[in-house]
Amino acid sequence: MIHELQDILNAEKQITKALPKMIEASASSKLKDAFKTHLKQTEKHIERLETVCKMVGVEAKGEKCKAMEGIIKECDSMMNEKADKSVMDAALIGCAQRVEHYEIAAYGTICTYAKQLGMNDVLDQLLMTLDEEKKTDSLLTQIAESTVNIDAE
Amino acid sequence: MIHELQDILNAEKQITKALPKMIEASASSKLKDAFKTHLKQTEKHIERLETVCKMVGVEAKGEKCKAMEGIIKECDSMMNEKADKSVMDAALIGCAQRVEHYEIAAYGTICTYAKQLGMNDVLDQLLMTLDEEKKTDSLLTQIAESTVNIDAE
Repeated sequence: MIHELQDILNAEKQITKALPKMIEASASSKLKDAFKTHLKQTEKHIERLETVCKMVGVEAKGEKCKAMEGIIKECDSMMNEKADKSVMDAALIGCAQRVEHYEIAAYGTICTYAKQLGMNDVLDQLLMTLDEEKKTDSLLTQIAESTVNIDAE
Repeated sequence: MIHELQDILNAEKQITKALPKMIEASASSKLKDAFKTHLKQTEKHIERLETVCKMVGVEAKGEKCKAMEGIIKECDSMMNEKADKSVMDAALIGCAQRVEHYEIAAYGTICTYAKQLGMNDVLDQLLMTLDEEKKTDSLLTQIAESTVNIDAE
């Protein structure tokens, strides 16, 4: 559980650095807004994780999350490619949903641990974040299915 | 879409190499069986992707998927740590669910493209795989919540 907490904390920190570039690279205002909202949420998720680390007595730092590093590297190299605005938006959503699903898996695992250890206060904090990650993923699917990809064809 | 197909094809190939090590490292027979079943499914997913690549006229090869490389690296370093059998099983499930969620995000994105391009035959192939990935993820959650993590506390 300690390892998992430190892993996702580092992953969230990497995301706060990646999102501003994704906001800049996106063309659709809906997508830009979704990324901006998620950046604010991510900052809140980091605060929650730091609270949880204190509650559990874990140091709020850890090794670089190699998985998130890989996901962001792919996103970076994609953003460096030349593409129409709408194709780029569709690809950005693809990257962002990989980020969200990494987080959903990671928070899901930690929630299972917290549940079975009877750490209800920790669980409450993490479930709030998990819920926001799932909602962000759904919102991205909606954006992809409504505006962005239609143009990207 | 071409980039996405080549990315997930490479990711699936990396998974076929990682799963035998995960089968060997797992202690619970339920978990071992789940990984064995998923290895067979993954081989089938690769076949389906190769079929889809032919249908779309895309070369069935691509650059190394850095995201999956990162997820598997984390899993490898975790497997090298010393841990009780049940703790190791819980951690293996954590890794495997990250793999599943990467795939769910990736296939989800490609399905959105296929839907909007009206490629129904491609969509049918990919939805079968997406469904199996989601079922594997649910099965892993079940295993985590039932047997493995209770011991890992």
